[in-house]
Amino acid sequence: MHAYRTHTCADLDASNVGETVRLAGWVHRIRDHGGILFIDLRDHYGITQVLCDPDSKVFKAVEKVRSEWCIRIDGEVKARDPELVNPKLPTGEIEVFVRDIEVLGAAEELPLQVFGDQEYPEETRLRYRFLDLRRAEMQKNMTLRSDVVASIRKRMWEKDFREYQTPIITASSPEGARDFLVPSRLHPGKFYALPQAPQQFKQLLMVSGFDKYFQIAPCFRDEDPRADRSPTDFYQLDLEMSFVTQDDVFATVQPVIQGIFEEFGGGRAVDKHWPQITYADAALKYGTDKPDLRNPIEMQDVSEHFRGSGFAIFAKLLEQEGTEIRAIPAPTGGSRKFCDRMNAFAQNEGLPGMGYIFWREAEDGSGMEAAGPLAKNIGPERTEAIRTQLGLGKGDAAFFLGGKPEGFERVAGLARNVIGEELNLTDKTRFAFAWIVDFPMYEKDDEGGIDFSHNPFSMPQGGMDALDGDPLKVLGFQYDLACNGYELVSGAIRNHRPDIMFRAFAIAGYGEDEVRKRFGGMVNAFRYGAPPHGGCALGIDRTVMLLADESNIRQVMLFPMNQRAEDLMMGAPSEPTNEQLRELRLRVLPAED
Amino acid sequence: MHAYRTHTCADLDASNVGETVRLAGWVHRIRDHGGILFIDLRDHYGITQVLCDPDSKVFKAVEKVRSEWCIRIDGEVKARDPELVNPKLPTGEIEVFVRDIEVLGAAEELPLQVFGDQEYPEETRLRYRFLDLRRAEMQKNMTLRSDVVASIRKRMWEKDFREYQTPIITASSPEGARDFLVPSRLHPGKFYALPQAPQQFKQLLMVSGFDKYFQIAPCFRDEDPRADRSPTDFYQLDLEMSFVTQDDVFATVQPVIQGIFEEFGGGRAVDKHWPQITYADAALKYGTDKPDLRNPIEMQDVSEHFRGSGFAIFAKLLEQEGTEIRAIPAPTGGSRKFCDRMNAFAQNEGLPGMGYIFWREAEDGSGMEAAGPLAKNIGPERTEAIRTQLGLGKGDAAFFLGGKPEGFERVAGLARNVIGEELNLTDKTRFAFAWIVDFPMYEKDDEGGIDFSHNPFSMPQGGMDALDGDPLKVLGFQYDLACNGYELVSGAIRNHRPDIMFRAFAIAGYGEDEVRKRFGGMVNAFRYGAPPHGGCALGIDRTVMLLADESNIRQVMLFPMNQRAEDLMMGAPSEPTNEQLRELRLRVLPAED
Repeated sequence: MHAYRTHTCADLDASNVGETVRLAGWVHRIRDHGGILFIDLRDHYGITQVLCDPDSKVFKAVEKVRSEWCIRIDGEVKARDPELVNPKLPTGEIEVFVRDIEVLGAAEELPLQVFGDQEYPEETRLRYRFLDLRRAEMQKNMTLRSDVVASIRKRMWEKDFREYQTPIITASSPEGARDFLVPSRLHPGKFYALPQAPQQFKQLLMVSGFDKYFQIAPCFRDEDPRADRSPTDFYQLDLEMSFVTQDDVFATVQPVIQGIFEEFGGGRAVDKHWPQITYADAALKYGTDKPDLRNPIEMQDVSEHFRGSGFAIFAKLLEQEGTEIRAIPAPTGGSRKFCDRMNAFAQNEGLPGMGYIFWREAEDGSGMEAAGPLAKNIGPERTEAIRTQLGLGKGDAAFFLGGKPEGFERVAGLARNVIGEELNLTDKTRFAFAWIVDFPMYEKDDEGGIDFSHNPFSMPQGGMDALDGDPLKVLGFQYDLACNGYELVSGAIRNHRPDIMFRAFAIAGYGEDEVRKRFGGMVNAFRYGAPPHGGCALGIDRTVMLLADESNIRQVMLFPMNQRAEDLMMGAPSEPTNEQLRELRLRVLPAED
Repeated sequence: MHAYRTHTCADLDASNVGETVRLAGWVHRIRDHGGILFIDLRDHYGITQVLCDPDSKVFKAVEKVRSEWCIRIDGEVKARDPELVNPKLPTGEIEVFVRDIEVLGAAEELPLQVFGDQEYPEETRLRYRFLDLRRAEMQKNMTLRSDVVASIRKRMWEKDFREYQTPIITASSPEGARDFLVPSRLHPGKFYALPQAPQQFKQLLMVSGFDKYFQIAPCFRDEDPRADRSPTDFYQLDLEMSFVTQDDVFATVQPVIQGIFEEFGGGRAVDKHWPQITYADAALKYGTDKPDLRNPIEMQDVSEHFRGSGFAIFAKLLEQEGTEIRAIPAPTGGSRKFCDRMNAFAQNEGLPGMGYIFWREAEDGSGMEAAGPLAKNIGPERTEAIRTQLGLGKGDAAFFLGGKPEGFERVAGLARNVIGEELNLTDKTRFAFAWIVDFPMYEKDDEGGIDFSHNPFSMPQGGMDALDGDPLKVLGFQYDLACNGYELVSGAIRNHRPDIMFRAFAIAGYGEDEVRKRFGGMVNAFRYGAPPHGGCALGIDRTVMLLADESNIRQVMLFPMNQRAEDLMMGAPSEPTNEQLRELRLRVLPAED
C-alpha cells in the first residue's frame, strides 16, 4: 500500500464499498455524535467522511486530532444508510471506518479558521495566507486562474503563436510609470530595472523576424497604494504580430478572449458581436473609454433644444465655444424621488447638479405630461422634441449636463452606471465587449503644450502626412478592449519608421537625442529593416477577477502584497545586511524630518 | 488583398502557379544574373525566390533594395524550369515575378550579416541581437526553446499538475547564492529580493493544500562571471507534490523528461531505463555525482591488489586510514603513447600522475603480456588479478589513482571522460540518464565543523532517529538527475516537521532563532498542519542546450547579458537619476581605491 494514500478525498463512491483504503488530508471538521467521531477529511480534490467508534483500537489517537491537522488514515469503505447519502458530495454515498491513523503534521491553535464563512481582516489573511488559501473560495479562485492561463496558452498556440521569455532584469522601459530598480554589484552605482512591460523586447522580437509572439508576462510597476491594484506587479497576456493591420489584431484576439469567457464565465452570456466604437463616440455616448455595454443607456447631444431656450443657464452656457448639453436617458426612471437622488449624486461628485425631465401620467387624465423644473423653463415643444429624440415615454426620465464635455464627462459616465444599476437596466448575466478605436495621439498638457495622450509608440493614422497638420486632430492606430466597464486590453499598431517616430516625438517636445537615450534599444533596431507590426496586452488579473466575479485583486493572487507593498508572511521588504550594502556600494540616508 | 501578405514565404508551391500573390519579408540575398535580379525573400517561415527583369516597371525600385531591407512585393507565381527546381526548399518548385514593390523598412549598413556563416565576436552579436536572431541557427534555437517549454507544460497538465505563479518581488530566499536586491520606495532603507528559486513558495503551496504544483519559473542569482551560465537569471521547471515518496517523484518526472528528449532530441536514442545510483557509488564508479553514462567505463576499488605489494608508493599509502587505490579501465587504450598522454593529463590537473598497466601481444609470441612500470613492481600474479577483476584483455589499459578519494576523485572523473572521448567509447548518439540518490545530509566544513552538504530542507532518511547518530552518516531523501554528464534535475523529499528541522539545523550550528529569521515564512507555516511533500527542479536552459547540441548558454537565450552582466543593446545597467536615488533615499558611495 502507498505510504500516504490509495485514493484522493474525492475518489470513493459506492463502487469502492468493502475495500480497505488509505487517505491523507486535513481535518476539515470533527464532530462527536453520541460517542462516534465523524471527521470530514479534506484534500485539494474533495472531502470524505471518515468515522471512528469507541471500540476502535485507535479511538484514543483519533480523539486527539484537531482542525487542520494533516493526517493519514486507513479504513474500510462502507455504504451510508440510504437516508444519510449526500448527493451534493461526490463521495456522499460512502463513509470510511478508521482502522489506523497517523498524524503527518499537527497544527497549533489556528489564527484563522478554514472551515466556515468567518470573515477575517485582510492583514490576518495575508499573514497566514497558507491557511487562507486552504479555504474553498480561494482554492477555487487559484485553480480558476491557473486554468484560465493554461487555456490562454493553448488558444495562442492553436493560432501559431509561440511564447518567448523576455528579460526580467533589464533597463528601464518607457511605459511612463515608476520603475523598480535593481542595484548592480558588478557595476556599483549602476542599476538595472524590472520591466514595466516587455514592450521594447516584443518589438525587438518583431524586428528579429519572429512574426508571432506571446508571453504570459510579469510586469513591474512601483505604484502608490490603491485598493484595486497590486502595488508591485501584475501579469498580462502580451502579444505582438508582424505584417498586420488593426483588424488583423482584433480578428486574432477576439476568439481567444471570447473562448476564455465562454469556457470560464460560469454560464454567463458572452457577446459575439464586438462593436468598434471611436474614442470620441465612447466619450459622447458613455462618458468613458471603457463603457459598460451591458447598460443600454446611450447619452446624446441635445444642445439644439436648449440653444436660445427659456432655460437661461444652458442657453448662456451654449454661447461659449466648445460647450454642449448632453442628455442621459433613464428609461423607467420617471419619478421625482429617483430624479432628485440622481441630482444629489451629481452634486456629490462635484457638479452643480443635473437638470432632469420625467414623463408621467397627467394628473388631469389627459395622458402623459412632462414634469420637472426644466420642462417648465423650455416649454412643451422643446420638451417633446427632446423626448422624441431620446425615444422615451411615460414613466421614463432624462438627465442633462452642460458645459465643456471634459468638465462633466466623467460624472456623466458615473451617473450612467448608477442609473443602469438602480433601474436594473444593466444585465448582470452577460459579458459585453467593445473595441475602442481612433484614440487621439496628442492632448494639451496642463501648461497648454502638446503631449502624447496615450502610447507614444503607436503609428499615427495617415503616417508622416498626418503629422504636418493640427496635432490635436491626429488619431493613432491604437485601441482598447472594454468589457463590462473595465479596460481589458490595450494595444496599437506600432510606429516602426524611425523618421515618423522622431517627428512624432518632436511634436511632443522630445529631441532625437532624448528619444535615443530613453528608447535606444528599440529605436536603434528600427534602422535595420523593421517590419510593420502591432499587438496588444490583456490584463490577466483583471480577466480572472471578472470571471471569478471578484472586485479585489488580492482575491485572485496567490501571495499578494498588502496595500503598503509589504509581504507580512515572508517579511518583505526587510533591512539589508551591511555586507550587502557594502557590496553594492550603497548607503541608506536618514529620513528628512 | 491584405495590406502586407497573402502568403508567408514558405507557403507557395506548384499548386499556386498562375496566382497573383503578395509577400512580405526580408531581403536575404540579392543577385544579378544577366540583368535579372533574384531576391531570396525570407520571413520566419521560409524563403521564396522572387525575381525582376529589366522590363518590369518597378525594376528601378527593386534595384535599390539591399540585404535585410524589409519589403512587400506583389507578383505572379510561375513554375521553375524543371532543372531549376530546388527540392530542398518547400517553395523550390516556383518563383515569383515582381509586379510591385513597397519598402516597409529600409536598413542601414549592417554591422552583422544575416546571410552566410560569418563568425562575429559575441559583443557584436549581443549589441545587435535583433540582427543576430534573424540568423537561421538562432531562429531554430529560439523556436526549439519555445516548443520545448510548451511541450513541458502540456505534459505537466496531462499529469494533473497546475501551474501557479509565485511572487518575483519578495524576500530573500535561502538557496545559498547571492540575492539581487530591490530597494523599496515606500519603505526607504528596506529592500525586497528577487527569488533565487520559488523554493519557499512552492512548499507554502503544499501547506496550502494545492497538492500538485509546477511553474516554468525565472530564478535570479547575482553570480560572478562564468562562461557557461547567465550572470543574472535562468529558468527552471519547478514542481512539487504532496503525499509522495521519492519514487513517486521519479515516476512523475521521468515520462515528462523522456518524452521531451524523444520529441526534440533529433533522433538521438533516449534511454528508457534510468538507474538509481547512490551518491557513494557514483563517486566511486564515475568520480562525480553527474556521470556521463554514455561512457561505459566504471572505476573500481583495487586496493587489495596493492596492499603489501612491491609498488611501495601505493602500498605505503594504503597504510593510512581512509585511503584507496582505484582503477580506471580503458578498453582499447593499450598503447604506451595513449597511457603516457593520460598520465600527462593527470599531472596537468594537479596530481603527481596516474600509474598504468596495459596489455599487449607478447613480444616473444607467447600470447598477451602486461606492460608498464606498475606491472613490473607488483608482479604478474597481482597484475593478472587486476586484469581479471576489471575484465580487460589484450589491447586494453588501466589507470590507477591512490590516496584519499576526495583528493583524486575529481581528476579521476575527468580522466574517465577524456578516456571515453579519446577512445571513442562514449556514444554520442544517445541521451543516458541516472538518478543519483542517497546524498549525505552533512559534510565537514573547512574548519572541521559540520555543515549541510546540499539542501538543508531535505528530510533525513530515518527521520529524527537518524539525527541522533553520526551526522556524517545521515543520508537525505535528496536526488539529482544526471544526463550525459550534466546535472539536469535536483530535488528532495522535504523536511515538513518543525521538530526534525530544528534538530537538523542545530547539528549544523544554527539556533532556532536563526532558522526562524532566515526561513520564517516557511517554518511558521509548518506549525499549522504541513503535509509530507517533495519535488524537484529541471534546468530549462541546460535542457535546451543539450537538445540543441550547444555548449554556450547564450545560444539558447533570446537577450542574454554578456559575461560582465551587461545588456549592451538596451544599455543595462545604467546610472540612475538623482530623483530616483532621492526617492529611494540611497546614496552611491565612491569606489575605494
